[in-house]
Amino acid sequence: MSKVENLFNKLNADLAPGQEKLLNFDNIVLKGEELDGDPVDFSHGDVDVFEPIPGSLDNFNYGFKEVGSSQAYTVYRGREDILEDVAAKLFKYSSTPINSNNEIIITPGTQGALFLAAGATISRGDKVAIIEPDYYANRKLVHFFQGELYPVQLDYLNHLDKAGINLEELEHSFKDGVKTFIFSNPNNPSGVVYSKDEVTKIAHLIKKYDVNVIVDELYSRQLFDNRTYTHLASLNIVPKENILTIIGPSKTESLSGFRLGVAYGSQEIISRMEQLQAIVSLRASGYSQIVLKNWFSEPPGWMDERIRAHQDIRDTLLELFKDAGFEVRMTEAGSYIFPKINNLSIDCESFVKVLKKQAKVTVTPGTQFGPQFTDCIRLNFSQDKEKAVEAVKRLITVAGYYKNEK
Amino acid sequence: MSKVENLFNKLNADLAPGQEKLLNFDNIVLKGEELDGDPVDFSHGDVDVFEPIPGSLDNFNYGFKEVGSSQAYTVYRGREDILEDVAAKLFKYSSTPINSNNEIIITPGTQGALFLAAGATISRGDKVAIIEPDYYANRKLVHFFQGELYPVQLDYLNHLDKAGINLEELEHSFKDGVKTFIFSNPNNPSGVVYSKDEVTKIAHLIKKYDVNVIVDELYSRQLFDNRTYTHLASLNIVPKENILTIIGPSKTESLSGFRLGVAYGSQEIISRMEQLQAIVSLRASGYSQIVLKNWFSEPPGWMDERIRAHQDIRDTLLELFKDAGFEVRMTEAGSYIFPKINNLSIDCESFVKVLKKQAKVTVTPGTQFGPQFTDCIRLNFSQDKEKAVEAVKRLITVAGYYKNEK
Repeated sequence: MSKVENLFNKLNADLAPGQEKLLNFDNIVLKGEELDGDPVDFSHGDVDVFEPIPGSLDNFNYGFKEVGSSQAYTVYRGREDILEDVAAKLFKYSSTPINSNNEIIITPGTQGALFLAAGATISRGDKVAIIEPDYYANRKLVHFFQGELYPVQLDYLNHLDKAGINLEELEHSFKDGVKTFIFSNPNNPSGVVYSKDEVTKIAHLIKKYDVNVIVDELYSRQLFDNRTYTHLASLNIVPKENILTIIGPSKTESLSGFRLGVAYGSQEIISRMEQLQAIVSLRASGYSQIVLKNWFSEPPGWMDERIRAHQDIRDTLLELFKDAGFEVRMTEAGSYIFPKINNLSIDCESFVKVLKKQAKVTVTPGTQFGPQFTDCIRLNFSQDKEKAVEAVKRLITVAGYYKNEK
Repeated sequence: MSKVENLFNKLNADLAPGQEKLLNFDNIVLKGEELDGDPVDFSHGDVDVFEPIPGSLDNFNYGFKEVGSSQAYTVYRGREDILEDVAAKLFKYSSTPINSNNEIIITPGTQGALFLAAGATISRGDKVAIIEPDYYANRKLVHFFQGELYPVQLDYLNHLDKAGINLEELEHSFKDGVKTFIFSNPNNPSGVVYSKDEVTKIAHLIKKYDVNVIVDELYSRQLFDNRTYTHLASLNIVPKENILTIIGPSKTESLSGFRLGVAYGSQEIISRMEQLQAIVSLRASGYSQIVLKNWFSEPPGWMDERIRAHQDIRDTLLELFKDAGFEVRMTEAGSYIFPKINNLSIDCESFVKVLKKQAKVTVTPGTQFGPQFTDCIRLNFSQDKEKAVEAVKRLITVAGYYKNEK
């Protein structure tokens, strides 16, 4: 096998969210009956139900018609006035000052920001700490840049007052030579939020061992139960040159189809990211960039209502899962639930396939978030509530077909 | 210097086209006077003058409003019906059959396609043949994936009936172990088209030595003087698994602001590209993808008129450059002129800076296309004709200020 083939075997995207249309159903043996109902795709949110920020399309049209060439061709890091606007809004939001000239970049989606950030910090052989479970791409990025994966466990199921990061393991990884630490807060897939105490301790460890940290705060606006959130950068403990924060309007704000993400922090990392962007995609979609002006400028009450509606769906689905004996932690932020199915007789990757076949329900297998999560599935509950409830009922029924005999 | 810093030093994008707003003018000593006139940015085409294909924006709006979620979240390689449509149109255009299920991918711009293609074929230490001069990113991509650059010369100035590739050098590179060959046809920056004889010989060499070839045909629709064009893939000489063709609607069609590119060919390379896209940017901007339906479906006569207008600008500018004693080959396709300034006393990177300061004219230094092109500059002449003529006159005047004394 060539080196390239070898590398790509580690990137296998066949079971990644969004790729379910390409699933291979060979060798799948079905048990029980097929269940009727509206198909629901929990692999991502439904932007027909939770629509993009009002005015986004109008603003795109304005950019196309009025601004023209200057909008189509921006500097790779993004158009200046948009960077200024976003930097000011993020300063207000995260209490972190951002120089719009050299401390911020617009990317094609937050995935684009993560890729550039990883490429700007990881060299072959570098040790990189990641959390398990965490966003599936983090581990793949480390593989792609030929870093050495250093997993740190998150005991997300067994706490209520904190996310559950194993800080001893994290410090051990730093002592052992880890150069970069990548994690998302709120955690994807479990929806837990790191406590202020946890974030502060992480910050002190990063400072002590002079590590680079990439923190993905994509879902930090959608906080439930009036929870507080601690922006790592705002603590002013990690030196500015060591930290990069990633955020974007693809989730709560439903602007995903425009492919927009933002990274801010270390000048040096941002500068490398822009040089990498020059050969990866040149710039975020030129016309789309202007839609960032709608971000953090939502109509009054819009965000509150969006959070309320999601909290309502969360409560209903969680009750269904708990009643059915699934182990699950309550989502504290974002739109993910990560239930653990006890006594399942097949692995979650096969379960994902039978579920799609028998119940028209699409979910993401737990193994995307860490190899040990063979009995977990992730659902994005940003969906039509009634349809989601019916779909989760079918999911629970199908899980019953594949339980181990007692 | 760390390995990452070392790598990024090779990617330096400060002088890349589109980044001129970030130019550093320290240590630049001006000679002669400042010239007044309308600023012209020859680093890219002006989409306010040559507008996007009519109906593109309407189609984007249709995709956003009518198609919704299925448009925002497509499979990473692109939405199925769009892939089918584009595959059928490209089959007709390039006489190359394309299976829309597994032989084609939509990417964020053709830059995105090039990056993914390079990542899917180049491993550390692999020898990669490139042409000099050729598109500036090709060499940077080889650096980024830590391949070994194997430059092959294009004697573009001294032929009329062919591009001027040194086929002996190319064969020598293949004998020497080159695994991948990347080139653009029409050539960027010189605007020359490879003859059928050259393309055929290249194809036979690729087959003989079992090399992967990535051919960038981005500008192949904009052919002047009724020139014929040979699509490498259409010859059916290179085995299908060894070839990838890249094309997109960013140039002649002025859809650049939507960031759309397409790659087709080898199933295996396409499959790896999609797996890489999963961690690079997930997918091309969801809403933008639908605009590909306007591509190759332009109103009758629209493309002919676009070519006629560009040929007219080309003729006028070439005459100015030739009269002023610049060495230049006539552009055969695309919108680039790559004149050589004889007896310039400063290098082209400094010339680019003084030109911007003294004449409000932005061009790209020849060194972006190969280190030896220190006395060349590239202009994209897809501009308002009158302004472009005045700008080239100023350029010639400023070049006069910096000529060596005889």
